[in-house]
Amino acid sequence: MSPKITTELLKQLRQVMRNPKYVQEPVQAYIVPSGDAHQSEYIAPCDCRRAFISGFDGSAGTAIVTEQHAAMWTDGRYFLQAAHQMDNNWTLMKMGLKDTPTQEDWLVSVLPEGSKVGVDPFIIPADQWKRMSKALRSAGHDLVPVKENLIDTIWTDCPQRPCKPLITLDLSYTGVSWRDKIVALRSKMAERKVMWFVVTALDEVAWLFNLRGSDVEYNPVFFAYAVIGMNTIRLFIDGDRMMDPTVREHLQLDSTLEPEFKIQVLPYGSILSELQAVGAGLSPKEKVWLSDKASYALTEAIPKAYRYLTPYTPICIAKAVKNAAETEGMRRAHIKDAVALCELFNWLEKEVPKGTVTEIIAADKAEEFRSQQKDFVELSFATISSTGPNGAIIHYKPVPETNRTLSVNEIYLLDSGAQYKDGTTDVTRTMHFGTPSAYEKECFTYVLKGHIAVSAAIFPNGTKGHLLDSFARSALWDCGLDYLHGTGHGVGSFLNVHEGPCGISYKTFADEPLEAGMIVSDEPGYYEDGSFGIRIENVVLVIPAETKYNFKNRGSLTFEPLTLVPIQTKMIDVNLLTEKECNWVNEYHQKCREVVGAELERQGRHEALRWLLRETEPLARVQ
Amino acid sequence: MSPKITTELLKQLRQVMRNPKYVQEPVQAYIVPSGDAHQSEYIAPCDCRRAFISGFDGSAGTAIVTEQHAAMWTDGRYFLQAAHQMDNNWTLMKMGLKDTPTQEDWLVSVLPEGSKVGVDPFIIPADQWKRMSKALRSAGHDLVPVKENLIDTIWTDCPQRPCKPLITLDLSYTGVSWRDKIVALRSKMAERKVMWFVVTALDEVAWLFNLRGSDVEYNPVFFAYAVIGMNTIRLFIDGDRMMDPTVREHLQLDSTLEPEFKIQVLPYGSILSELQAVGAGLSPKEKVWLSDKASYALTEAIPKAYRYLTPYTPICIAKAVKNAAETEGMRRAHIKDAVALCELFNWLEKEVPKGTVTEIIAADKAEEFRSQQKDFVELSFATISSTGPNGAIIHYKPVPETNRTLSVNEIYLLDSGAQYKDGTTDVTRTMHFGTPSAYEKECFTYVLKGHIAVSAAIFPNGTKGHLLDSFARSALWDCGLDYLHGTGHGVGSFLNVHEGPCGISYKTFADEPLEAGMIVSDEPGYYEDGSFGIRIENVVLVIPAETKYNFKNRGSLTFEPLTLVPIQTKMIDVNLLTEKECNWVNEYHQKCREVVGAELERQGRHEALRWLLRETEPLARVQ
Repeated sequence: MSPKITTELLKQLRQVMRNPKYVQEPVQAYIVPSGDAHQSEYIAPCDCRRAFISGFDGSAGTAIVTEQHAAMWTDGRYFLQAAHQMDNNWTLMKMGLKDTPTQEDWLVSVLPEGSKVGVDPFIIPADQWKRMSKALRSAGHDLVPVKENLIDTIWTDCPQRPCKPLITLDLSYTGVSWRDKIVALRSKMAERKVMWFVVTALDEVAWLFNLRGSDVEYNPVFFAYAVIGMNTIRLFIDGDRMMDPTVREHLQLDSTLEPEFKIQVLPYGSILSELQAVGAGLSPKEKVWLSDKASYALTEAIPKAYRYLTPYTPICIAKAVKNAAETEGMRRAHIKDAVALCELFNWLEKEVPKGTVTEIIAADKAEEFRSQQKDFVELSFATISSTGPNGAIIHYKPVPETNRTLSVNEIYLLDSGAQYKDGTTDVTRTMHFGTPSAYEKECFTYVLKGHIAVSAAIFPNGTKGHLLDSFARSALWDCGLDYLHGTGHGVGSFLNVHEGPCGISYKTFADEPLEAGMIVSDEPGYYEDGSFGIRIENVVLVIPAETKYNFKNRGSLTFEPLTLVPIQTKMIDVNLLTEKECNWVNEYHQKCREVVGAELERQGRHEALRWLLRETEPLARVQ
Repeated sequence: MSPKITTELLKQLRQVMRNPKYVQEPVQAYIVPSGDAHQSEYIAPCDCRRAFISGFDGSAGTAIVTEQHAAMWTDGRYFLQAAHQMDNNWTLMKMGLKDTPTQEDWLVSVLPEGSKVGVDPFIIPADQWKRMSKALRSAGHDLVPVKENLIDTIWTDCPQRPCKPLITLDLSYTGVSWRDKIVALRSKMAERKVMWFVVTALDEVAWLFNLRGSDVEYNPVFFAYAVIGMNTIRLFIDGDRMMDPTVREHLQLDSTLEPEFKIQVLPYGSILSELQAVGAGLSPKEKVWLSDKASYALTEAIPKAYRYLTPYTPICIAKAVKNAAETEGMRRAHIKDAVALCELFNWLEKEVPKGTVTEIIAADKAEEFRSQQKDFVELSFATISSTGPNGAIIHYKPVPETNRTLSVNEIYLLDSGAQYKDGTTDVTRTMHFGTPSAYEKECFTYVLKGHIAVSAAIFPNGTKGHLLDSFARSALWDCGLDYLHGTGHGVGSFLNVHEGPCGISYKTFADEPLEAGMIVSDEPGYYEDGSFGIRIENVVLVIPAETKYNFKNRGSLTFEPLTLVPIQTKMIDVNLLTEKECNWVNEYHQKCREVVGAELERQGRHEALRWLLRETEPLARVQ
């Protein structure tokens, strides 16, 4: 992987930073955030502006270019990758390390007095704008919105914004009609006394209307905004996809409906002017509800006194608690996913010793097996197929330059998942196709103990997920080991594989309390730079637990694994497990046998079934 | 306990709220916060203004009086007490309950349009002012500073501000001279490019100058401010205590010193005008460092552009990391404290069955035994001596109306501590002088498991204490039990028993990372309303740990208990302990025997020594 040469591009960018055609006054710094206008985690190629200017294409990172410097902030997952992908015009700012300055502090340290710092107001979330603007102002600088995106002005071959057909989801998948979702949303709006709600996140638009798309890779979403009034619904979306009769019928666009459910379809690009018109027409006390992560541009469209901003929208919170139809769909999706992985691991076990299977071949094979399953749509993220030292690169994705051949001498880590019409999967298994060393087994077993500690945790209703994060680390900590990422994230239902407002991470404090029906991942790991990576990840459902005293009727919660893929027993040092942990593994494997075994049988996949049975033999602890 | 009759007082207060002698314009509401001008947790009688106006004298609460209403906000610890102490002029606002309005929301709901809300700018912290002012302004009201404290104008028999003699601490107690502390502070100031540092917290002034006082009960502090410049030291303090030759010599007030260590002593009341003079004389880029919890009055003395505000001051952070002299002092203090408690528990064991020992008698006896120890100064907080149902009142303090007799049928909880010249103690033990029920033992054992889980936890250098909080709850959670308070707080070294910036609580996220030398409490509990309370509290020192892999040289930390008082084995259900937990108890008790036993022997306290030996017999697990 050779770095992108950015000398010429940076020269061009610095020219437009001074060009009166694009900026009222020259800007001495220009910020290129990661996201798109919807603050999406996964973005369309036309929105990969930070990757275009720097070469670094990890999922998180912010570039800042000044007349003298170019700097990139990213987190521990991407230190290695960013260092490889960027040329020496760039300084890597390793977030989370003690001596790394914040973007604001760095700007203040390098800018000449009274500087202007530019940013595209559609790309920067309002809360970030506020923080950065305040810090810069207090040091005598100004954050200014630059209407035209300066990267776009120098990106001559920028791809078009995608506009792909939509998928409609009926009640058997969603459990609730879009009309009922609108009714529930309006009742939340009435509770908070707001008259308008602006839907800016792509997965929230998709969820609200029970529609899916494929404008962004891996995330089944489509470019759109919505503005919901107490009596009106406006959907901002482009393309002839709204001509599709199925979509028209689903949204009842041609029926005579009660006016409050009549959807007005408007061009995607008209959101700002329409919202400005809403903002201009507000009577006193008429509030407009927006996420505080909505773009600065849209937030500014509503006069400050009329804004009602919250970190999580009512859609985000409702979406996180899966109903029975969604939960059942997630279960089905995970059984199919397990079938595909049993096939894959059985195949790998035979093929790896031949020395012909590379990381890319393995990833492709995983996709092939998944695509054979019913209602498969696409992958839910870029497969992390990594062997040996590549496994220590936490968000590794094999490319020809790094592609390594699997062998019987190295640990193999596969973190992969898919979108099925009935659910989203995300599973990590770490395997050895030869004989693992005692140290590898030791580390694997600590990670497994952490995985079990979270999965089997019992906690009172209302507990926030971040309070469970240390459970996943305790066994590793006892031996002086740790991992530099959170333990889990929310998972959508045939939607984004990472979603809020819940999760299990030491990094967040503003997460919403866990409640029954929420779905998160449980994925502790351990990474030995230059040697191997270990991660064990299940998607788990929050369910009520039975406890002796039930928290004075507050209620008890625990997790049920939805992922049902064997955990390689060869990697386990059984003597490091407690009896309880050993029983957990055996019961988990018994459930894999029963549920996935039945499906393998039904699909006539006998060889994979034999593999499953062999891999799920009960562990025996030496007393 | 009958409520205070406040009808006449409220009438008087409402009159001064309109009196042009005190307010420029009438104020429609007046806020009476809990604290003093230093935002102290414990306050002097002259600062108990909220208790004077309402009758409610708990440690936390804010009163707001309007022309029609009088309302009191307090938290769950004080709902019962506040309800008992206030007459029906007052509405109790139960903080933490869903339907309780915030102070701002309530004010907005009851005030006529365009109201003025008054507050003493010396009592309200700047960060609270900012929040409240913003909320009121957005609803069309104004928060205004009222220079003269309106309670003081009607409080005819208000006690005088205390002004007691000072104690000087030499190097053998402090480890570092005040001159070296000033040097270190100035180097932190230089790092952040600030020219002035304003010391507003009483314990920070005391720590900086290696002085102690007794102006406030339990906290060995004195009323003072300090302003440290790069070349000047100003100490604002009243009374002839600065005439004391020991103090003068300690501060080298009469020596010919380098000018940058010459202390200028000024009257306590001149801080505002002196700070305003500093503020008026600042050149561009000359910043003044203040805690963001400093009073609004002092913060406003510095023009906004010149302020440098942080949640934790460099003194707060330096003070938290104890040096060798302080650590050794804390060890000595805890050994003496353990001697006193061995005497107490031995005495209780003999006396309780006679039915003559009340909660107050037990508390007094504890103080008597402590006062026999060398360098004893005073208690470090009001002793919580509670039996049976009183134990479930988390911040209970026995008074004649509630005073209960200890018996062989009820659990007894004693949370107490003292100030010694060499250190501060805080210890909770829960005892049964008869035969505990299986349920009581079960709950006690879960609490003990939580205590051990924190005390024996190993974690990487840089971990924040709040990440350890769930370890204390895990065993309770497994059975559906929990406790509604944090697990630990920072402890001062012959200073405040509660101090920042570290702690172990699910409630904070802004705590500073734990580092070797910090001292915190470890005090999980369980409370059964109307029946009993259980808490097991040790003060523990953060120390380096030995781990197999040492976090890639990041370093490992764990805790060492400083408190060395037996944990009643009669209350333990040994079968619920793991082997590791059982060994922890036995090793802890072995250390109590060796260290405290030797001191009991030295002091010739043979009966208490026999009690100690009996109480520290090793536990034996049934395999």
